[in-house]
Amino acid sequence: MTTSSQDLTPAPFLEASKQFASGKDTPSAFLERCLVTFAKYEKNVGAFVHYDLDGARASAKLSDARWKAGKPLSPIDGMPVGIKDIIETQDMPTEQGSPLFVGYRTARDAASVSALREAGAVLVGKTVTTEFAASEPRGTKNPWDITRTPGGSSSGSAAAVGSGMLSAGLGTQVIGSILRPASFCGCVGFKPSVGAINRGGSYDGFSQSCTGVLGASVSDTWQVAYEIALRVGGDPGFSPLIGPAQPPAAKQPRRLALLETAGWSVASQAAKDALLDVRVRLQKAGVEILDRRESADIQALEDAIVSARQLSMDINAFEGRWPLNTYRDRDASKLSQSALGRLAQAEKMTAAEYRVLLAERMRVRGIYAELSAQFDGCIVLAAPGAAPVGLGSTGDPSFVVPFSLLGVPALSLPLLREQNLPLGLQVTGFEGRDADLFALAAWLIQKLDK
Amino acid sequence: MTTSSQDLTPAPFLEASKQFASGKDTPSAFLERCLVTFAKYEKNVGAFVHYDLDGARASAKLSDARWKAGKPLSPIDGMPVGIKDIIETQDMPTEQGSPLFVGYRTARDAASVSALREAGAVLVGKTVTTEFAASEPRGTKNPWDITRTPGGSSSGSAAAVGSGMLSAGLGTQVIGSILRPASFCGCVGFKPSVGAINRGGSYDGFSQSCTGVLGASVSDTWQVAYEIALRVGGDPGFSPLIGPAQPPAAKQPRRLALLETAGWSVASQAAKDALLDVRVRLQKAGVEILDRRESADIQALEDAIVSARQLSMDINAFEGRWPLNTYRDRDASKLSQSALGRLAQAEKMTAAEYRVLLAERMRVRGIYAELSAQFDGCIVLAAPGAAPVGLGSTGDPSFVVPFSLLGVPALSLPLLREQNLPLGLQVTGFEGRDADLFALAAWLIQKLDK
Repeated sequence: MTTSSQDLTPAPFLEASKQFASGKDTPSAFLERCLVTFAKYEKNVGAFVHYDLDGARASAKLSDARWKAGKPLSPIDGMPVGIKDIIETQDMPTEQGSPLFVGYRTARDAASVSALREAGAVLVGKTVTTEFAASEPRGTKNPWDITRTPGGSSSGSAAAVGSGMLSAGLGTQVIGSILRPASFCGCVGFKPSVGAINRGGSYDGFSQSCTGVLGASVSDTWQVAYEIALRVGGDPGFSPLIGPAQPPAAKQPRRLALLETAGWSVASQAAKDALLDVRVRLQKAGVEILDRRESADIQALEDAIVSARQLSMDINAFEGRWPLNTYRDRDASKLSQSALGRLAQAEKMTAAEYRVLLAERMRVRGIYAELSAQFDGCIVLAAPGAAPVGLGSTGDPSFVVPFSLLGVPALSLPLLREQNLPLGLQVTGFEGRDADLFALAAWLIQKLDK
Repeated sequence: MTTSSQDLTPAPFLEASKQFASGKDTPSAFLERCLVTFAKYEKNVGAFVHYDLDGARASAKLSDARWKAGKPLSPIDGMPVGIKDIIETQDMPTEQGSPLFVGYRTARDAASVSALREAGAVLVGKTVTTEFAASEPRGTKNPWDITRTPGGSSSGSAAAVGSGMLSAGLGTQVIGSILRPASFCGCVGFKPSVGAINRGGSYDGFSQSCTGVLGASVSDTWQVAYEIALRVGGDPGFSPLIGPAQPPAAKQPRRLALLETAGWSVASQAAKDALLDVRVRLQKAGVEILDRRESADIQALEDAIVSARQLSMDINAFEGRWPLNTYRDRDASKLSQSALGRLAQAEKMTAAEYRVLLAERMRVRGIYAELSAQFDGCIVLAAPGAAPVGLGSTGDPSFVVPFSLLGVPALSLPLLREQNLPLGLQVTGFEGRDADLFALAAWLIQKLDK
């Protein structure tokens, strides 16, 4: 099956919700439209590891009544959402993409899940994650072309949102696990400032990991992130997401940095041309855009992030020694070779080496932060091209890993194309200023989505 | 039953292990001595929520063989230890002191537990924690006098180590949950620099929480902490514990600060006299000791930490909204009134208020850090007096909470007495310099333990 782009229609919720008060539309009717899409694609795509359609329908009915009474619990009351299966849910298993955890139940909701429930969201199911949210794929296919990867590790959430089965899905990212699959599946992907959304109950626990959102629109994405942080804050000790109760209004930037990253050397010509076309269009709209050739500060950053992937992998390896060691002791045959390899690397590392890695990360973060005085944000490709053919790898994270390392907010916007397949335009902002990034993204969508 | 102090003999392991290579003593024989104590006291004290004596004996036998072969896995190979029941264990339930989690199994070891197993420690059982490691007691009695509280929240580990049933127990502290019970039960208590010991798999997840050690001696305590950090590092993004592979050698300090804290106004005269006696003895030994009356910098710190308890409680409340909200939704009748009260407070707080609290904590940390230029550490009471009569409260944390807030390493040393009951001398150091604190503690033990 190859789906042509016309077949896939995202399911933005906030727009539809304008009709809920009048009863012209209802959360139940919205959900049923999503479930038509689900029925059409899920069997071939495999976005879900577990789902509960009856439960979702019952939740949507309760939401209908609240909207009718003029008392929705939040703007996302009734929104059909999926939960990446690295995140705990009280009423569904949490399997982490691992044969070690088949059917495993944790008896509680993660922080993000409890917040979504409090906000009235309709939990449709658990979406496929790679093994332990790392590199080993778990079978989800790209809804645009099932011979291609959906990306990872938030594979299922991206495939479900990109195809219109859900309005939003939770994802997590420590390397490129939200923005890369968003790019490949044609939805919005948001990784917040490090610590800005509470990760309690997520098993993606590295120091640069974040819980984030894959959404059908920029507005839906903001609202989901906002409603979570409103109810459960950020990670302990970190500043929770800052921003308005409604999606930030579009705001034209004055100056943007165009970043190439280590990805530029492996990007397709079509992808690079697509970004350079964006550059021209934005310049025509009056935005000043500088790159490494025109700014020594950008060149310094490009130099500093050239090893972002290796540095991130090394930091993760040390931090991931536990729990991989306990999983290996239980049953090494149920771990992938890649997991065993990371563990072997970790067991050779010392705390002193790790401290050096942390210091280097801090240094690079300082260089990026300097740009905030001159630039309103950065534009970057989200991937070297459209989703590659094959399901054995989740694709190249070179373009997205620097911003994981940097701990800054980043969005992938479904604004580019390669071979009629989606490709994300990545926009990145500055730590703690997630709302400014959404205002920039809203403006980019207005300018470029035509 | 009132136990007189002569009856309680701690079980320091490192000292005994010197005889293991020759076979004059063995881990199995050491364990059996601990189990005699266990048989004598556990029924009345209730330190354990779960134990596996057969499993412990089998582990000790394996350790015997390793020592005999000259190949112990670490200096703590064969050490009988207990795990606070807020920390996950693969082979025993993790109940968190909550009726909601009776018999609950998590299918994995926490980071600290996996490290202890790798180091060869003998896991005797899970020790009693207050509900969710907060304030609600769960029945453990003080082994020195069972009409008195053992302190909390690491009640069981302190009671078991203080009475000699174990050489060490894991604890966690966000307010005073390691040092207070150590003071009341007469063992060593160690809270490391924030983040220095990996908390993965502990359900005490606040931003100023630490996993630490209750030990029979300063040496045992260091070694347990060291062996954990060696194998699983610290919290992701934090510097793991720094220090030598053997317990730091005693080192005489040049100058110490005597801190009163908000606890001074509620301390017994006997407790205050005990600290002032220590001051005199140390001065005679050539140590300069200054207090708030003699140092403007100490006065500034005393002023800054006077609200440490309230500030800590408020930070914890916000950070603890989740998971208490999900537990309440499951079955509010199984939560204590104090847990429900904290949740109600959290639900009234905003992210903006929380950011103010974090900023205030950062400010206070800066004031304390300034002292490191002038002082080698601080001496403080660990509690306002000996363990109070009654099991309904775990006692006053006023003396220990400031150092939780500050994120600095702190030790309670069983060097003081009130009414023939134990009282801890607290010594505190500077972030990242945990080993220096142990060198100071070793010297204090040499000087004062006679």
